[in-house]
Amino acid sequence: MLETTIAAIGPLDGSAMTAARDLQARLTKPAGSLGALEELSVRLAGLAGACPPPLPEPAAVAIFAGDHGVHAQRVTPWPQEVTAQMIGNFLAGGAVVNAFARQAGASVTVVDVGVAAPLPFPPADAAPADVPAPTGTTLAPPRLLDANVRRGTRDMTVTAALTRDEARAAVEVGIRVAGELLDAGAGVLITGDMGIANTTPAAALIAAFTGVDPAEATGRGTGVDDETYRRKVGVVRAALDRHRPDPADPLGVLAAVGGLEHAALTGLILGAAARRVPVLLDGVIAVSAALAAAALAPDAVGAMVAGHRSAEPGATVALRHLGLDPLVDLGLRLGEGTGALLALPVVTGAVRVLHEVATFDAAGVSEK
Amino acid sequence: MLETTIAAIGPLDGSAMTAARDLQARLTKPAGSLGALEELSVRLAGLAGACPPPLPEPAAVAIFAGDHGVHAQRVTPWPQEVTAQMIGNFLAGGAVVNAFARQAGASVTVVDVGVAAPLPFPPADAAPADVPAPTGTTLAPPRLLDANVRRGTRDMTVTAALTRDEARAAVEVGIRVAGELLDAGAGVLITGDMGIANTTPAAALIAAFTGVDPAEATGRGTGVDDETYRRKVGVVRAALDRHRPDPADPLGVLAAVGGLEHAALTGLILGAAARRVPVLLDGVIAVSAALAAAALAPDAVGAMVAGHRSAEPGATVALRHLGLDPLVDLGLRLGEGTGALLALPVVTGAVRVLHEVATFDAAGVSEK
Repeated sequence: MLETTIAAIGPLDGSAMTAARDLQARLTKPAGSLGALEELSVRLAGLAGACPPPLPEPAAVAIFAGDHGVHAQRVTPWPQEVTAQMIGNFLAGGAVVNAFARQAGASVTVVDVGVAAPLPFPPADAAPADVPAPTGTTLAPPRLLDANVRRGTRDMTVTAALTRDEARAAVEVGIRVAGELLDAGAGVLITGDMGIANTTPAAALIAAFTGVDPAEATGRGTGVDDETYRRKVGVVRAALDRHRPDPADPLGVLAAVGGLEHAALTGLILGAAARRVPVLLDGVIAVSAALAAAALAPDAVGAMVAGHRSAEPGATVALRHLGLDPLVDLGLRLGEGTGALLALPVVTGAVRVLHEVATFDAAGVSEK
Repeated sequence: MLETTIAAIGPLDGSAMTAARDLQARLTKPAGSLGALEELSVRLAGLAGACPPPLPEPAAVAIFAGDHGVHAQRVTPWPQEVTAQMIGNFLAGGAVVNAFARQAGASVTVVDVGVAAPLPFPPADAAPADVPAPTGTTLAPPRLLDANVRRGTRDMTVTAALTRDEARAAVEVGIRVAGELLDAGAGVLITGDMGIANTTPAAALIAAFTGVDPAEATGRGTGVDDETYRRKVGVVRAALDRHRPDPADPLGVLAAVGGLEHAALTGLILGAAARRVPVLLDGVIAVSAALAAAALAPDAVGAMVAGHRSAEPGATVALRHLGLDPLVDLGLRLGEGTGALLALPVVTGAVRVLHEVATFDAAGVSEK
């Protein structure tokens, strides 16, 4: 399934991009006056192979949840059980991602791809994900999918976090979830994540794929103190020294120092790119997964939209490596998909301009 | 009316702000992880004097339109009749501001406060503005209010753009429009503007209120060439040299080098602040008007939310002077209210968190 998906990912459609640039130039506004939104609309036309491209709606957030053996190295003050507790909060609609998703009319699907303890919540049936009805009408409640590949990763400072088969299985969970959400009608996918300690493997992935020093890729996550931060950098460095992962072997990197939610997000991104639908990246977990997706299929970058610039320094390293400019930059470092959801109206607005704005000719407005 | 409005503007409510900070600390997310949204929610609690503050909805965009005698100095390649033509476009729903307003569920009110030629469109009756029904239901069509104070300003390089009475009348148009929109139920006001050549008086206002050199306050507006840009800086410099406006006399500054839409926006901002409702600032025209509002009533800054950072350099000068950080920074330079509308979901999201997110206690989530 991974190989088929990668094979389906192709370059942007140049003629749709030219058509979008031409249309932008005829709309009733000074040329270039919509700044970054103009080029975004052009790129989404190239992705869809159509001008205008479809409006990116409805949106579907997929929150992949996993736990991490490296938690034993005390890289965070939060207890591991918070991963499962927060899943309960997501399903009850009480987290920030729920508030932002309701506002944006986005569905929320929580996927247990690697939580350590069996969850006390009933998973949804295997039916395709509900997607939101048009904005303003009732949204389906958040739902849980059970796709647990392994009950948490191994401690990457001791051994590889995952076997190669486990890493592949987690990537394929993400591909499958992307397919289900798109089959059910989603027009854009939004990356979400939950996993106590998951900024540690994210930092390791970013250092491995970009070649920066672990200190440059590692941040304070939920806001750890100086001592924990130093320990965290040391843990990332030790894991990379032990495994020396080869960025030319992305699955090997994910297995050595990744997480199950990171690998699943890699699959979600690949799955969206293969269907030529945009995927809105959230923070540092998402962009670390995006590096793996780009290493597996360079053209997948064409489907990626950087939602925001996380306060985590590794996010900026990864975005630079991917050549992506974030749409929102407000110092968020929450994850869950929250930063990407804030950016969704910008993406929709950029496309809407191509659908709804009058041309100079049609509106009878003089040009300069 | 101006004096009464200024007298009604007071400081933020410290106890509501403390309550909002305390609530933020108990919500299920790491402390500080929502970045700039947390402090924004605290400030809006202080403005409303309540925690949580009301959701800023529905939104109402007020587009003030005017023409400029300084157009004769060839500061732009666009013909003056485009101001009126674009009003036709706004009323027909074909401009970018209309597309973004529909997406955001915001009403659009166009106010002729200073267009040079009589408009061929019928104004709405004097009834209070329609405001949008909840998102997802039908929005009232854009409407036009006739509040023309003068058919375009005078050329500020030759004489004062406005008399003091005209400047005051335009400010009071803005106050009146704010009052009507708020009486009709708007929960947030959004500044919009239309006026060929209006970045020239905006630059003059910014230089006058902040003391920077005209070259630092002046930008390329719709994208003028080098020769026009040099002429534009010279025009701003000549106007300031001629009038030497005193920033301690804000009405005098607006009269000397302002525009009718600038003055009306000053009034809109004051009107919102007096009613303790947030006003979302768009680009360089809005922030130049905000400088006048802050000079008239320093506490009015508490009601201002900087929607975005316009590509116009004067906007950054003005925002710095006001101490405001913009929410969106995507190189837009269109005006109309477009940049502010893109930021609206961020403002709503910041407040929504205080309404809808569960506390650690209520959700049964462990703390670190």
